[in-house]
Amino acid sequence: MTSANYFELLGRDGAARSGRLTTPHGVVRTPAFMPVGTSGAMKGMHWREVRDAGADIVLGNTYHLMLRPGAERIAALGGLQTFTGWNGPMLTDSGGFQVMSLAQLRKLSEHAVTFRSHIDGTSYELSPERSIEVQRLLGSDIAMQLDECVRLPAERSDIERAMQLSLRWGERSKRAFESAASGYMLFGIAQGGDVPELRRASARGMVDTGFHGYAIGGLAVGEPQAVMLAMIEEVVPILPSDRPRYLMGVGTPEDILEAVARGIDMFDCVMPTRNGRHGMAFTRFGPVNLQNARHSDDPRPIDEESSWPSTRSCARAYLHHLVKAGETLGAMLLSEVNIAYYQDLMRGIREAISQGAFAQFRERTRADWARGDITPR
Amino acid sequence: MTSANYFELLGRDGAARSGRLTTPHGVVRTPAFMPVGTSGAMKGMHWREVRDAGADIVLGNTYHLMLRPGAERIAALGGLQTFTGWNGPMLTDSGGFQVMSLAQLRKLSEHAVTFRSHIDGTSYELSPERSIEVQRLLGSDIAMQLDECVRLPAERSDIERAMQLSLRWGERSKRAFESAASGYMLFGIAQGGDVPELRRASARGMVDTGFHGYAIGGLAVGEPQAVMLAMIEEVVPILPSDRPRYLMGVGTPEDILEAVARGIDMFDCVMPTRNGRHGMAFTRFGPVNLQNARHSDDPRPIDEESSWPSTRSCARAYLHHLVKAGETLGAMLLSEVNIAYYQDLMRGIREAISQGAFAQFRERTRADWARGDITPR
Repeated sequence: MTSANYFELLGRDGAARSGRLTTPHGVVRTPAFMPVGTSGAMKGMHWREVRDAGADIVLGNTYHLMLRPGAERIAALGGLQTFTGWNGPMLTDSGGFQVMSLAQLRKLSEHAVTFRSHIDGTSYELSPERSIEVQRLLGSDIAMQLDECVRLPAERSDIERAMQLSLRWGERSKRAFESAASGYMLFGIAQGGDVPELRRASARGMVDTGFHGYAIGGLAVGEPQAVMLAMIEEVVPILPSDRPRYLMGVGTPEDILEAVARGIDMFDCVMPTRNGRHGMAFTRFGPVNLQNARHSDDPRPIDEESSWPSTRSCARAYLHHLVKAGETLGAMLLSEVNIAYYQDLMRGIREAISQGAFAQFRERTRADWARGDITPR
Repeated sequence: MTSANYFELLGRDGAARSGRLTTPHGVVRTPAFMPVGTSGAMKGMHWREVRDAGADIVLGNTYHLMLRPGAERIAALGGLQTFTGWNGPMLTDSGGFQVMSLAQLRKLSEHAVTFRSHIDGTSYELSPERSIEVQRLLGSDIAMQLDECVRLPAERSDIERAMQLSLRWGERSKRAFESAASGYMLFGIAQGGDVPELRRASARGMVDTGFHGYAIGGLAVGEPQAVMLAMIEEVVPILPSDRPRYLMGVGTPEDILEAVARGIDMFDCVMPTRNGRHGMAFTRFGPVNLQNARHSDDPRPIDEESSWPSTRSCARAYLHHLVKAGETLGAMLLSEVNIAYYQDLMRGIREAISQGAFAQFRERTRADWARGDITPR
């Protein structure tokens, strides 16, 4: 089985690729980082700032949205893009990951997962078919198949069972998606934990089913970075080179750089906003903890050469004060600083690939991180 | 005693006035509403949004700033305008009001008020002289004298004692301010509770001392609006007409409209941001509670004719969802919606006064509020 292809490969440099993914709500430049707007909102950021920072696409969480305000309501209000005012490309996850981490009284069967809402205890059933239905009601440009993600370390038998179930759920997801309007996409998800042969089997099964794009799930769930990179190296060669590849829930800037070097095109992670809320800035010089007293009298900005206004203009002393005082503005500023840094990194990666200079970019970027923050005054 | 005058009266319409106050950090158009940036930050808003909404001047709280990050530190970092990046006119209160409402183990003497920080228990002494010193270190364009504010209802003897103390502290504040650089201003504060003759005595004493501007304090502390307006009517005729008049801590849009009609030029209040954080929008149609389920499926904006983008574009259903989900973005959006509404009201007031049409503006604005919100769908 094959599906229509909306991905255009623009450049290659080693295993790294740059491309363009065309969705019903706009074009996504890849490699792309998707900021996570959990419940239809980015925490601490206006959508206009997410756009200004350079994001082409954002991620919404099906679990949160189906519970509140509800998929049918969002559909009646014109879909997630109109509802939120983001008005750009959106990818939604299947809901499965949050069911496993947030919901109560979960019960998994071949048919579906049943659970109670963590908000009000209401019972829900999430099957592959219902997940697709919900994501279509939300109006996602890119829907994800329902899968089962196993937290590592785990027994091989558990990993294999979840991987096989995910393959069967992938087939059911694809059938449920068949009537979707042209231009909308469904991605499959490879599971298999940290077991190379299960990863390869999962990838082959997924490619046999045939999706618009291919995701690698169940990584960055507790395993060392080397294991994550090794699993990417198992899976990528099996994936068709003309389709987008998405590494779910990843990650640190370094994770992203290394995964791009291994052929990944898309990423999402809550880290830039979550860490921002806790006083941490991602920078050209590596992570900087604004909680630290070394910043309390420092009038210098985080990075005077940044392209993002707040990064090059807000005094570290001011950010330190806001973080210590628990002011919302501290979380707001560091969230935008971090999203802007991530988008800046992706822009640098794309440019380097298109110029055939990715290896140098990777080396220079890693050297900057290793050099560390500017010297305290 | 007289002080230099930086206020220019541009128009009068009945008792209402429009003018221009020139500060070291820029010009303030009056009547002016000053959003409150408590600890050097507006809760839920970037400074650029405060500016875009039309605010010329903001208020900082001396109590919060002297405790954290400290006045000497802010001075070393270039003053509050540079430190925060607001870079515009700033008024600071004296610290007295928050000492009375927030600090622990307060002790009031003729000399000063001593207290312990609510953050870490450190002991402080705040005298009229120290309050002025702190405000000068902060770099406030407009400093306020230290006063004692009595919460109403109160005994007449308590009100009178606090009023007399405030007059003596006003004189000491003025002496402490004498060496301030040209262009910086000190405002006196009239107290006197809800007792007309004490209000008049306070105003006369304050005018005898002579300040760059005159504030009315100790109102909007629990008394009915009619009492507040009556006290304004006692004080205003005693104040020199060429100086700015500031009604502290006020208030609702209606309070502001009625106080402008009685000759007040400046206002501050936490209400637009605080109520915004609780799901309430100030609108042309009066207050609208976005918590209310009537908005849950309503795709219409708060006010499609508003000049502020979020007010005329965000769906009520989306705002309702954000408020119910406790998303920071809900507080952010409603804070900017409210600050923009307040600034829009002030712009309307200024234009009406300059056109000699304030009575009609006041009538039309009150009629709009009375008409109430648009009909639910």
